[in-house]
Amino acid sequence: MKEGIKIVTVGGGSSYTPELVEGFIKRYDSLPVRELWLVDIPKGEKKLETVGQLARRMVEKAGIPMEICLTLDRREALKDADFVTTQFRAGLLDARAKDERIPLKYGVIGQETNGPGGLFKGLRTIPIILDIIRDMEELCPEAWLINFTNPAGMVTEAVFRHSNWRKIVGLCNVPIGMKMGVAELLDVKPERISIDFAGLNHMVYGLNVYLDGKPVLDEVIGKLAHPDKGMTMKNIADLGWEPDFIQALRLLPCPYHRYYYQTEKMFEEEKQAAAESGTRAEVVQQLEGELFKLYEDPELAVKPPQLEKRGGAFYSDAACSLIDSMYNDLQDIQPVNTMNRGAIASIPDDSAIEINCVITKDGPKPIAIGDLPVPVRGLVQQIKSFERIASEAAVTKDYHTALLAMSINPLVPSDTKAKQILDEMLEAHGLDFVKRGGERTLVK
Amino acid sequence: MKEGIKIVTVGGGSSYTPELVEGFIKRYDSLPVRELWLVDIPKGEKKLETVGQLARRMVEKAGIPMEICLTLDRREALKDADFVTTQFRAGLLDARAKDERIPLKYGVIGQETNGPGGLFKGLRTIPIILDIIRDMEELCPEAWLINFTNPAGMVTEAVFRHSNWRKIVGLCNVPIGMKMGVAELLDVKPERISIDFAGLNHMVYGLNVYLDGKPVLDEVIGKLAHPDKGMTMKNIADLGWEPDFIQALRLLPCPYHRYYYQTEKMFEEEKQAAAESGTRAEVVQQLEGELFKLYEDPELAVKPPQLEKRGGAFYSDAACSLIDSMYNDLQDIQPVNTMNRGAIASIPDDSAIEINCVITKDGPKPIAIGDLPVPVRGLVQQIKSFERIASEAAVTKDYHTALLAMSINPLVPSDTKAKQILDEMLEAHGLDFVKRGGERTLVK
Amino acid sequence: MKEGIKIVTVGGGSSYTPELVEGFIKRYDSLPVRELWLVDIPKGEKKLETVGQLARRMVEKAGIPMEICLTLDRREALKDADFVTTQFRAGLLDARAKDERIPLKYGVIGQETNGPGGLFKGLRTIPIILDIIRDMEELCPEAWLINFTNPAGMVTEAVFRHSNWRKIVGLCNVPIGMKMGVAELLDVKPERISIDFAGLNHMVYGLNVYLDGKPVLDEVIGKLAHPDKGMTMKNIADLGWEPDFIQALRLLPCPYHRYYYQTEKMFEEEKQAAAESGTRAEVVQQLEGELFKLYEDPELAVKPPQLEKRGGAFYSDAACSLIDSMYNDLQDIQPVNTMNRGAIASIPDDSAIEINCVITKDGPKPIAIGDLPVPVRGLVQQIKSFERIASEAAVTKDYHTALLAMSINPLVPSDTKAKQILDEMLEAHGLDFVKRGGERTLVK
Amino acid sequence: MKEGIKIVTVGGGSSYTPELVEGFIKRYDSLPVRELWLVDIPKGEKKLETVGQLARRMVEKAGIPMEICLTLDRREALKDADFVTTQFRAGLLDARAKDERIPLKYGVIGQETNGPGGLFKGLRTIPIILDIIRDMEELCPEAWLINFTNPAGMVTEAVFRHSNWRKIVGLCNVPIGMKMGVAELLDVKPERISIDFAGLNHMVYGLNVYLDGKPVLDEVIGKLAHPDKGMTMKNIADLGWEPDFIQALRLLPCPYHRYYYQTEKMFEEEKQAAAESGTRAEVVQQLEGELFKLYEDPELAVKPPQLEKRGGAFYSDAACSLIDSMYNDLQDIQPVNTMNRGAIASIPDDSAIEINCVITKDGPKPIAIGDLPVPVRGLVQQIKSFERIASEAAVTKDYHTALLAMSINPLVPSDTKAKQILDEMLEAHGLDFVKRGGERTLVK
Repeated sequence: MKEGIKIVTVGGGSSYTPELVEGFIKRYDSLPVRELWLVDIPKGEKKLETVGQLARRMVEKAGIPMEICLTLDRREALKDADFVTTQFRAGLLDARAKDERIPLKYGVIGQETNGPGGLFKGLRTIPIILDIIRDMEELCPEAWLINFTNPAGMVTEAVFRHSNWRKIVGLCNVPIGMKMGVAELLDVKPERISIDFAGLNHMVYGLNVYLDGKPVLDEVIGKLAHPDKGMTMKNIADLGWEPDFIQALRLLPCPYHRYYYQTEKMFEEEKQAAAESGTRAEVVQQLEGELFKLYEDPELAVKPPQLEKRGGAFYSDAACSLIDSMYNDLQDIQPVNTMNRGAIASIPDDSAIEINCVITKDGPKPIAIGDLPVPVRGLVQQIKSFERIASEAAVTKDYHTALLAMSINPLVPSDTKAKQILDEMLEAHGLDFVKRGGERTLVK
Repeated sequence: MKEGIKIVTVGGGSSYTPELVEGFIKRYDSLPVRELWLVDIPKGEKKLETVGQLARRMVEKAGIPMEICLTLDRREALKDADFVTTQFRAGLLDARAKDERIPLKYGVIGQETNGPGGLFKGLRTIPIILDIIRDMEELCPEAWLINFTNPAGMVTEAVFRHSNWRKIVGLCNVPIGMKMGVAELLDVKPERISIDFAGLNHMVYGLNVYLDGKPVLDEVIGKLAHPDKGMTMKNIADLGWEPDFIQALRLLPCPYHRYYYQTEKMFEEEKQAAAESGTRAEVVQQLEGELFKLYEDPELAVKPPQLEKRGGAFYSDAACSLIDSMYNDLQDIQPVNTMNRGAIASIPDDSAIEINCVITKDGPKPIAIGDLPVPVRGLVQQIKSFERIASEAAVTKDYHTALLAMSINPLVPSDTKAKQILDEMLEAHGLDFVKRGGERTLVK
Repeated sequence: MKEGIKIVTVGGGSSYTPELVEGFIKRYDSLPVRELWLVDIPKGEKKLETVGQLARRMVEKAGIPMEICLTLDRREALKDADFVTTQFRAGLLDARAKDERIPLKYGVIGQETNGPGGLFKGLRTIPIILDIIRDMEELCPEAWLINFTNPAGMVTEAVFRHSNWRKIVGLCNVPIGMKMGVAELLDVKPERISIDFAGLNHMVYGLNVYLDGKPVLDEVIGKLAHPDKGMTMKNIADLGWEPDFIQALRLLPCPYHRYYYQTEKMFEEEKQAAAESGTRAEVVQQLEGELFKLYEDPELAVKPPQLEKRGGAFYSDAACSLIDSMYNDLQDIQPVNTMNRGAIASIPDDSAIEINCVITKDGPKPIAIGDLPVPVRGLVQQIKSFERIASEAAVTKDYHTALLAMSINPLVPSDTKAKQILDEMLEAHGLDFVKRGGERTLVK
Repeated sequence: MKEGIKIVTVGGGSSYTPELVEGFIKRYDSLPVRELWLVDIPKGEKKLETVGQLARRMVEKAGIPMEICLTLDRREALKDADFVTTQFRAGLLDARAKDERIPLKYGVIGQETNGPGGLFKGLRTIPIILDIIRDMEELCPEAWLINFTNPAGMVTEAVFRHSNWRKIVGLCNVPIGMKMGVAELLDVKPERISIDFAGLNHMVYGLNVYLDGKPVLDEVIGKLAHPDKGMTMKNIADLGWEPDFIQALRLLPCPYHRYYYQTEKMFEEEKQAAAESGTRAEVVQQLEGELFKLYEDPELAVKPPQLEKRGGAFYSDAACSLIDSMYNDLQDIQPVNTMNRGAIASIPDDSAIEINCVITKDGPKPIAIGDLPVPVRGLVQQIKSFERIASEAAVTKDYHTALLAMSINPLVPSDTKAKQILDEMLEAHGLDFVKRGGERTLVK
């Protein structure tokens, strides 16, 4: 067996890749990546080439023997891989733009992960992930799949429910962003902060916050209640929280919670932005264009600082740190998407949750919290059911199952709107779903 | 010990009382009510007198030795009671009108049980129920409390969480109404229909429907999917269901589910009704006026047919049938509000649920269903948390707890609106709640 | 479709059959059995013939048009059946004698249902039941399987874990015997007694006892604590309970509980009986011989009273009453073996339990109890695990799985004895189990 | 506030104390113990003095400024403590000798933690622990209680059920001993081994074993199956496992499991030992005498190597390492006794379990495992119920509750023996328990 680790990144032509490469370079001593395979589809060949060349320049500048392999042949890449990361975007940004724009016409936020947009992103993404898993079962059965592709919660749920593969970890940069945000709020270094995360992907709460191990949740809540000090992330408008509400909640919400606790404001903001500067997808499209221009510069041999604006901040840290801990059995605590196994009482034991885990060579092990606080159990349960039904729709391509997912999404106000949005989106994405009526596959 | 049963009805001056009296008369052979005590508050004395006289004429006409006792002294009435029924309306219809009108100003449905209006109804009602229980602990510790006072789910939850009294059953006429509706839909006699009910009060689903014991859910769904055949009750606008949605859901929703699955339509309908004919409270106020005119007629010695319009249809059947089954240990199946005890997996074991129970002398025993179907778990969990936090707010009178309840209600679109509605309603009802900030009583 | 019900009884040549026939005759008005098929194996042909002729004489005497069909071809019988009952004894009484005698040599009680003997009875019986189910899936997919074959708990568990068939009810006469015993103790008619049963087959407790619906558990316990008043059944020695123990337990145990709470006495009693009058199997063998002599009498046209000594008392009532309630959707309460579905918290939701159920056309629906009382949870859990692992061993024929079942049985005192007993019994029954070592099929 | 940590050790005169002192000395850099208060009762004054002087010599030799304070006044010591450790032995070794000897007369193993002896040790110990907690609530409400006093599982359960104190961790050296044993078996350094521990105190299993993070359970099982290679601890006879049994179990049992899986052999061994060399209590009594002789030597300034024979091996490591991780918020993984919170599904959420936890400043956080493997759920549940009922008996001093605990202990073969042993032990220990009959405090 060869020395060092073989990593495969599906969707390797993404503008995020330099973050990942930087992370592997930084950790080379403990995490000796022998080969990094960047895989993409023919449509992404040019981007793959550009990103791949930049990656090679970065590695060369760092002076480490990490081989960068570029390919359009996924199966060639997967052979004997140790870790497979997935960061592709099925349908590219064009599809995301539809996901975001169509619901707006009906007065509904698109929301590309846990909203109507997320349903369609899931419908496109899940079949591909299940395909990759079939390849992995054959070509690298010992590898771990580290999924960054959104909607990460729905994807992880789909793998648990519709395959026998269990070596998957879903990863997101929202928790690390929350940690950074708290550090900024308290004006301390991020490494002094720790947070008890629990919930679902893009629906995760900080149950407690610690500074040097001492609880400081009340102090953080006090600061959040100050109206002009909302903590948020680059890709979500900073609207602040109603001071009395955040004091009543007494939990640290994640930025995506604004979609549910401030639905009207968020809708107005998105609608206006869509009219003025385009949807988030369109903004990102432009940003990516600019980034790829920079990447093409043959002098560039580091991750350009402009990448942070893209919304993927701390991504490198989260991903590389997870792989590092698994490879070296570090048994440290990281928030990831994994199987519940009783850690949250009101969520089924075999569903995916996002929670603080001990990261071991044998995978993440969730820390039990008993149950979520009473006030948030309902919303979390609702998104979990949405993810579960959406993942079933992705597999069965059943119209009624897709409609059910759309209807129970908390952002969708009525059965009629659900149907209108679903129908227009199915049409726009050219998807052909069958009405099976009474015939149901969903395990009730 | 005297022969026969002593029943006490708190809120005995209600226009519903003739239904109850009719029920007891009809069942006198198996359920020999010796004394029926009608209790009311001084403000209701005139109504109590009118209803009481009608009751006496009804009993006399039936030729049975049931004594009708009228009193404003609750403690006198409770002494040695066998069953206590509660059907009072704290704050009367004036308060309900506020509960319904104020939220409308903010674009939100009031909904007097599981909506913002229900929160305030609960805040008024729960302290009175807990008072009654303290009296019962002293004066009739062996009696059962049969609660018809809305919000019945929240009230039952409050009793489980904030007293040691366990002999309470919450009762509602929604399930019996659904059964009647299905019978009409299938054009068969109601006694041939049975339904597996599970959920919460005003948030109950029919998981299966049977005709003569054979499953006919698909047939019922097929009929509901016919757009002009929505099944509903007198007090909720009949908007029909989106055919594909009801086929996707494949469960029998209750009429109140329209508030959550058709929020926009329901809001428009309520707003228009409020403008044209007054809110439901105001319509009821007028209906009640007319009813009491009828009741005053000294020739009237039966329940007048006009009472059915009032929305309390089948009320007599549900209430008397429950007391009959308990008194005679009939061990038949009835849907009531009782403690979960594991019957629904994702709801806490010690919370109130509405579910099919075996009715025994020892109280209702819930039939286990495993868990609710995936698509409805979130909404049910959300209302359960709302009920739980609202009941805590009623006891602690803490502003932040009340705000939390308002904010997580699925009809309320944002933290800001929650605060605006809460503040105006607290003001309108003259309630003085304290902001305790970080100090929290809620068991997380 | 033909009028009336078709019932198939596998093991129809059993000495119990006249009880069943008597039951169907008595209920003919509500439960019109058109055809009763008695099926047996070639080895049982003579008994089948004898019992069949008696059955025909009984039916003729009763003057009802119930056809008695005798066959050795199970598949012919199963075609279009409405109910299939199983009461066969795999290996006949010879095998049972081994099940009981071999453990005694090692100082261990054989116990033919939840003990070492029960393990082997399960190993013989479960494959046959799974065979019958495969036939039913093909020939009568709408039928219900009513299993009386012991070990009934283990068999029901096996069907839930190792087939997709769900239309099975496990039935036992222990609960009805307990009811009769309590009635005798209180000197009242049995129909005035009801009991809240919960636990497992032959490991069921009465959580509460009612006389005319009023709780009388303390009175019953008081009588049981009187040393010479143990309540038991014909086939279990009446040793009485330690008075202080039964007062401490404050639950109604079933007769089989003596094996676990009075292990030493029961062992001594069984050993002595085995030496003097033979094991229970041998006693039964003799009783059966006598019964069949009676059955052969062409003048006999009723169930002979001697059958009651056989240990199957109330069997007719339990079985026919269950089928009656299912066929007529009576929705009354009966204790049966069915899927847990959350009714007992500490037992897995998908395991078989014995519990009070509402009996409907759609099957039994368990009444939720929350959890078993703390003092009995461990023993019940232990037997449940034993049943589950034993049923897996029956399917996989894995030596280590069988050894694990034997080792964790509460009657077996050590790993070494477990192995000795297992080895001798495998040899005696001519079973060939494979040691698969690390390779495990058991879902941990 | 003063620099450094104040630690109080109740039962400070124990022969174990030098281990603890050594541990604090070794870790002084990261865990600066300012004051170590050794508390004992008047009867233990001489031992306290001896051990205290040795501790002072040890500290002096190490050259660190740790003050050793000796006192008989517990309340003086507790004032403003940071950590309180409890290692006292209520009733001293005389009581333990009775706990072990009396059951032997009835053919039953005494077993001083999870057996009949453990019941009485709990009855003596729990009231004292609850007393200490009342003092702590007043004198050092921010402190953590680290309990080493056996029966540690029962004590932790009692604190959760019968006080509002939650800042308790139960600690045991069994898991660290198992780790050492595995390391020896595989002939590797202990720090390369990690084990997934789950279960109860003295009833803990290794679900998986890792060498450098890679699973090696099958290799370990293979070695254990070799008959002369049983892994055990100094204070439990090494009888080896039945090779096929350990392969069937495929879990790492703890040494105390022999009492349950090899009851007969263990009984014989204990009986013989009691006759020849005295019970374990008597052996320990002699060992302690020898140890205290050594301790009195004014030249001795280190922990003498003979202490290891005492059975407390690795005790220093376990205890100091726990306090270190809590004080410094190390967030590493250690197996301790803590509240379940859903980590093991079939055990109540609010019961004490022994499980791998992340150790933080905020206490231990259990890692969820879903549920225990099927084969061991019953035994674990049985011991949990025993602990729970025993802890209730310790508080209520109710005879029937104590009898119930004794009767359901898996080592006790019958209700009659349970009563005989209980009665003789109550008498021997001079305990006066009241028979309350029907009146029950146990939450069913």
